[in-house]
Amino acid sequence: METHKSLSPDPNPAAEDDDHPAARRIHRLALHLNPPQGLHSHGDLRMLACAAKGKQLDVSTQELTEYMRGKHRDVQERVYEYFNSRPDLQTPIEISKDEHRELCMRQLLGLVREAGIRPFRYVAEDPFKYFAIAEAVGSVDMSLGIKMGVQYSLWGGSVINLGTKKHRDKYFEGIDNLEYPGCFAMTELHHGSNVQGLQTTATFDPLTDEFVIDTPNDGAIKWWIGNAAVHGKFATVFAKLLLPTHDIKGIADMGVHAFIVPIRDLKTHKTLPGIEINDCGHKVGLNGVDNGALRFRSVRIPRDNLLNRFGDVSRDGKYTSSLPSINKRFAATLGELVGGRVGLGYSSVGVLKIAVTIAIRYSLLRQQFGPPKQPEVSILDYQSHQHKLMPMLASTYAFHFATLHLVEKYSEMKKSHDEQLVGDVHALSAGLKAYVTSFTAKSLSICREACGGHGYAAVNRFGSLRNDHDIFQTFEGDNTVLLQQVAGDLLKQYQQKFQGGTFAVTWNYLRESMNAYLSQPNPVTSRWESEDHLRDPKFQLDAFRYRTSRLLQSAAMRLRKHSKTLGSFGAWNRCLNHLLTLAESHIESVILEKFIEAIKRYILVSALEGGSFAIHKLTEYLSFQVRNIARELVDAFDLPDHVTRAPIGMQSTVEAYSQYTQYAGF
Amino acid sequence: METHKSLSPDPNPAAEDDDHPAARRIHRLALHLNPPQGLHSHGDLRMLACAAKGKQLDVSTQELTEYMRGKHRDVQERVYEYFNSRPDLQTPIEISKDEHRELCMRQLLGLVREAGIRPFRYVAEDPFKYFAIAEAVGSVDMSLGIKMGVQYSLWGGSVINLGTKKHRDKYFEGIDNLEYPGCFAMTELHHGSNVQGLQTTATFDPLTDEFVIDTPNDGAIKWWIGNAAVHGKFATVFAKLLLPTHDIKGIADMGVHAFIVPIRDLKTHKTLPGIEINDCGHKVGLNGVDNGALRFRSVRIPRDNLLNRFGDVSRDGKYTSSLPSINKRFAATLGELVGGRVGLGYSSVGVLKIAVTIAIRYSLLRQQFGPPKQPEVSILDYQSHQHKLMPMLASTYAFHFATLHLVEKYSEMKKSHDEQLVGDVHALSAGLKAYVTSFTAKSLSICREACGGHGYAAVNRFGSLRNDHDIFQTFEGDNTVLLQQVAGDLLKQYQQKFQGGTFAVTWNYLRESMNAYLSQPNPVTSRWESEDHLRDPKFQLDAFRYRTSRLLQSAAMRLRKHSKTLGSFGAWNRCLNHLLTLAESHIESVILEKFIEAIKRYILVSALEGGSFAIHKLTEYLSFQVRNIARELVDAFDLPDHVTRAPIGMQSTVEAYSQYTQYAGF
Repeated sequence: METHKSLSPDPNPAAEDDDHPAARRIHRLALHLNPPQGLHSHGDLRMLACAAKGKQLDVSTQELTEYMRGKHRDVQERVYEYFNSRPDLQTPIEISKDEHRELCMRQLLGLVREAGIRPFRYVAEDPFKYFAIAEAVGSVDMSLGIKMGVQYSLWGGSVINLGTKKHRDKYFEGIDNLEYPGCFAMTELHHGSNVQGLQTTATFDPLTDEFVIDTPNDGAIKWWIGNAAVHGKFATVFAKLLLPTHDIKGIADMGVHAFIVPIRDLKTHKTLPGIEINDCGHKVGLNGVDNGALRFRSVRIPRDNLLNRFGDVSRDGKYTSSLPSINKRFAATLGELVGGRVGLGYSSVGVLKIAVTIAIRYSLLRQQFGPPKQPEVSILDYQSHQHKLMPMLASTYAFHFATLHLVEKYSEMKKSHDEQLVGDVHALSAGLKAYVTSFTAKSLSICREACGGHGYAAVNRFGSLRNDHDIFQTFEGDNTVLLQQVAGDLLKQYQQKFQGGTFAVTWNYLRESMNAYLSQPNPVTSRWESEDHLRDPKFQLDAFRYRTSRLLQSAAMRLRKHSKTLGSFGAWNRCLNHLLTLAESHIESVILEKFIEAIKRYILVSALEGGSFAIHKLTEYLSFQVRNIARELVDAFDLPDHVTRAPIGMQSTVEAYSQYTQYAGF
Repeated sequence: METHKSLSPDPNPAAEDDDHPAARRIHRLALHLNPPQGLHSHGDLRMLACAAKGKQLDVSTQELTEYMRGKHRDVQERVYEYFNSRPDLQTPIEISKDEHRELCMRQLLGLVREAGIRPFRYVAEDPFKYFAIAEAVGSVDMSLGIKMGVQYSLWGGSVINLGTKKHRDKYFEGIDNLEYPGCFAMTELHHGSNVQGLQTTATFDPLTDEFVIDTPNDGAIKWWIGNAAVHGKFATVFAKLLLPTHDIKGIADMGVHAFIVPIRDLKTHKTLPGIEINDCGHKVGLNGVDNGALRFRSVRIPRDNLLNRFGDVSRDGKYTSSLPSINKRFAATLGELVGGRVGLGYSSVGVLKIAVTIAIRYSLLRQQFGPPKQPEVSILDYQSHQHKLMPMLASTYAFHFATLHLVEKYSEMKKSHDEQLVGDVHALSAGLKAYVTSFTAKSLSICREACGGHGYAAVNRFGSLRNDHDIFQTFEGDNTVLLQQVAGDLLKQYQQKFQGGTFAVTWNYLRESMNAYLSQPNPVTSRWESEDHLRDPKFQLDAFRYRTSRLLQSAAMRLRKHSKTLGSFGAWNRCLNHLLTLAESHIESVILEKFIEAIKRYILVSALEGGSFAIHKLTEYLSFQVRNIARELVDAFDLPDHVTRAPIGMQSTVEAYSQYTQYAGF
């Protein structure tokens, strides 16, 4: 037991120079994350008896919480408090799909009309605040989070971002106060990722000054449209704009545009003529969201309903646009929708925090087996359990800071419209959304399994969190497709470098590390024998960046080689696994950078692969060390019990099992 | 397109020598799995343009099906046909917990009393047939599979395996015909994995010749007991047997024993006095199973209700046993319960087959993007998609043969009771159950994600398969605990080797490879440059076994070193990740061996890690090649559409989308 004492941090005078309060807090945290000198002075990373329960290291949860809290914590607390005060609006564990949908609508109405939290204005004015509300609302019920996102970010966002003043004037108020519930009808049965392949048509009729919306075949039925099955009155419909011409073809395809299409009568709520709506039915999760399928049969809408910010049609059927080509217009249109991706990455970290909190608290509580004739030990005392949960906890912190950075960049972009920043946010949001949501999805399964049988009780939340979060990997861009966009962007930057261009901000590190790669030996193989290097953030970042540079260089060369025989599509496919690894490697570098910036010191996250024995040893050791402050680190996520809700994951360990037995009726 | 022709197999005269029909079929399959000479004659593993759709390779699905089919296919077809003919017994996609439980009971009654399939006799007489029924029943609704397992394998199995003739005579008929629905009450709120830590007590009262069953504290409440919340009449209760003594302590703890305890009145179904039953409530999955929690307050049962095969109490309170110690009796008791583990591993492969079939069929159907101005390609044409699904398909085949082998060994053991075989089956069932269920759990998430949005529709089954299967990783032995048992067994074998003992059958390979390890260089690093070696099953098996031997040797040395300072518990924990890797490595070696035995040739399964560039290239290439026979390989699983049920995974691709649109109401 006494051996534990040596874990108490020695003060590190050098670091005390910086007397900024935040810096001091970071420093204090860093001390906990770095073992004191002497413990491994002979290169011997001693693993202490894991069963030992020495005194806790000194982590001030409150200070850490302050540091972690976003500036919009107040509005999040208003959300939590409102739903906590309204048990009738809380989603029960068992609820039918239809009841869940109605409850979800009542929750949204309550939020907006009763609690007075009106998210719509923040979509444009203060996206940071909007995402904070979305995260809080998602922790109440993820269906509510998505329902809110459909209404304000997708339907509302399409009107204000793709439309012009006339649309804003006409629809803002109704969207804001929920009198105009709406849909975002992009995906079709046959086309999701390939948006340019959409087949719904909007043909201009110059005689009546209208567009005629049609579903030409079953594959073009709009599918998975949130808010469509039950509540939607309008839909933003993405369709190929067809204009009559005077040439032989008679018709010109101007590419995919967005149109406002009323789908149900504002008063009677009856489906409007020419529109067929069916229910997409029960889903794996998110059953509070009413996804529907829409078919259009010659549905006529006024010309004004074209969302005409990037392209317009005049009364006489002439097309005008400030952008020169279909591809540019398409890119500008999709570019305006990037907010959804930013929000998903951010919310995914929120889900991960809840899951990690429940799993770690329970793993501290739960005891099983132990040394002969001694009390049983907490399951978090097992190396294998630390291996499952401690790097996950470190990653949660890293993602917290990385997505915060993304939200800041996005907010900046919405103000400045700086072109380089637009490209940067696009690739960064694609990469972070893909990386974080994949990680969270895997972690939810690991957390359930780490909590054994009690993790399988629905009341302990892993099931609904996993089922609801699962689709985060697919919607707003399939993760595999998004990572390809990141790889594509890196390759473009790479080419520009060799043509004398500049890297975008996020990519800037590549300039330096590409040069290093071309001139220096691998920093890992040349330096990793030394443990000091393994603990040095600069070395760690170097190693991550070196890997990205190497992958980028080799991918570029392979693509060039294969494109000669296979064409660009074939060559891309031939190197696809390589390209996905490149994208992930890049995103890991960015996450690590943001983490280091935030913590200054950090623990080696699980992301660093390589199989080195020294790294494994260090990871095991650090996992063990973090185990001793794991409770404080999850407490710092600052999730009240009425938000986490799982009886096995209560803040007070005294009550945990008794809450659970009471829940079962004892 | 023409390039595809070169994939047609060249006849290989050498292999035609063996003219056994099965061998010919295997050979034909092997040809498809091995590329013809010439294609990579210059060490250049050419990846053909993935978008190309050449003619299909010649796989006879029918022959392959015949080879794959178990000898108990007939009874499986009776199960399928019965439920297909009774739509009223099919589980709807949305159903409340309470309705699901009642339906599940009706399904079981229908199976036994109407279809006349009575699984109980096979638990002892023909386990192979029992597992075949369990697999088929599980594909109807996994809740039914588990409900059946609780009744026949757990409750029924405990009576016939832990009891004696008097128990069999009294209970067999009622268990068989479902008049005596029963429970298996082992797990407690505080103890699952650590069965020896159970706290429920059974105190012998010599005055009345009864045992008194008690729950001494909340932590000892029996928890997660299937059949308890609603239907059970009896429970096999595991409790510490306490006998009055004449010494100072007054009581002797004889260790955990099993007792038959009536819990509800046979006629009125009222809960019996002293017993409190509560509902464990909604679970992540398997909500057709009524798990309950049981508390006992001085519940008296006749002395005869002790399941007394391994230990008995006489009228005057004397304990007798053929086994010398508490630990031996405990091991014998748990040893009889190994069938549940065998069944879970086997059923898990059944779940994996369904998921892989749906995911691969849909990936062949689904098209997205393509070369410029050409039709879109199937998503299975993407390298990344092949990377997700083709090694998974190969693993499914490998698991099929490995679990078949396990079932055969288990059946043999039930007949011969050979002691070495008992130990062998114990470790093999622990390892395969852990490895296969973890793999299937991960794969279900990958399959859902690979099918994008349509994979998220509940009707396409990934959600319920994942939620129902999830707990396979935990019940009948937590996977992390089971892998430790495998590691422990390996270390015991290792010690015996150096004491001149023999390895158990499954472990026998270690004798040879341990010797090789000690005398030869690593076969991978010394030989893997050559592609011939990478494709040589002997080399592959050598490499896997070499890895296991190396891990075993190093684990033994590290344990010895650390146990000096940390004690045996601390040393074990200090090496835990290492030990888990050792166990997995061993199980992978066994799976590979069985796969090679079955196919003679094989494709490199994903299990082989190591990061070699050559292996990556080969995996990519083979994944691409298997893609061309993927449809036939999943067809050979022989799962009728009314078993797979997912509209996106129908056998005929013509109907797939239309089934799906019809389902939505179009």
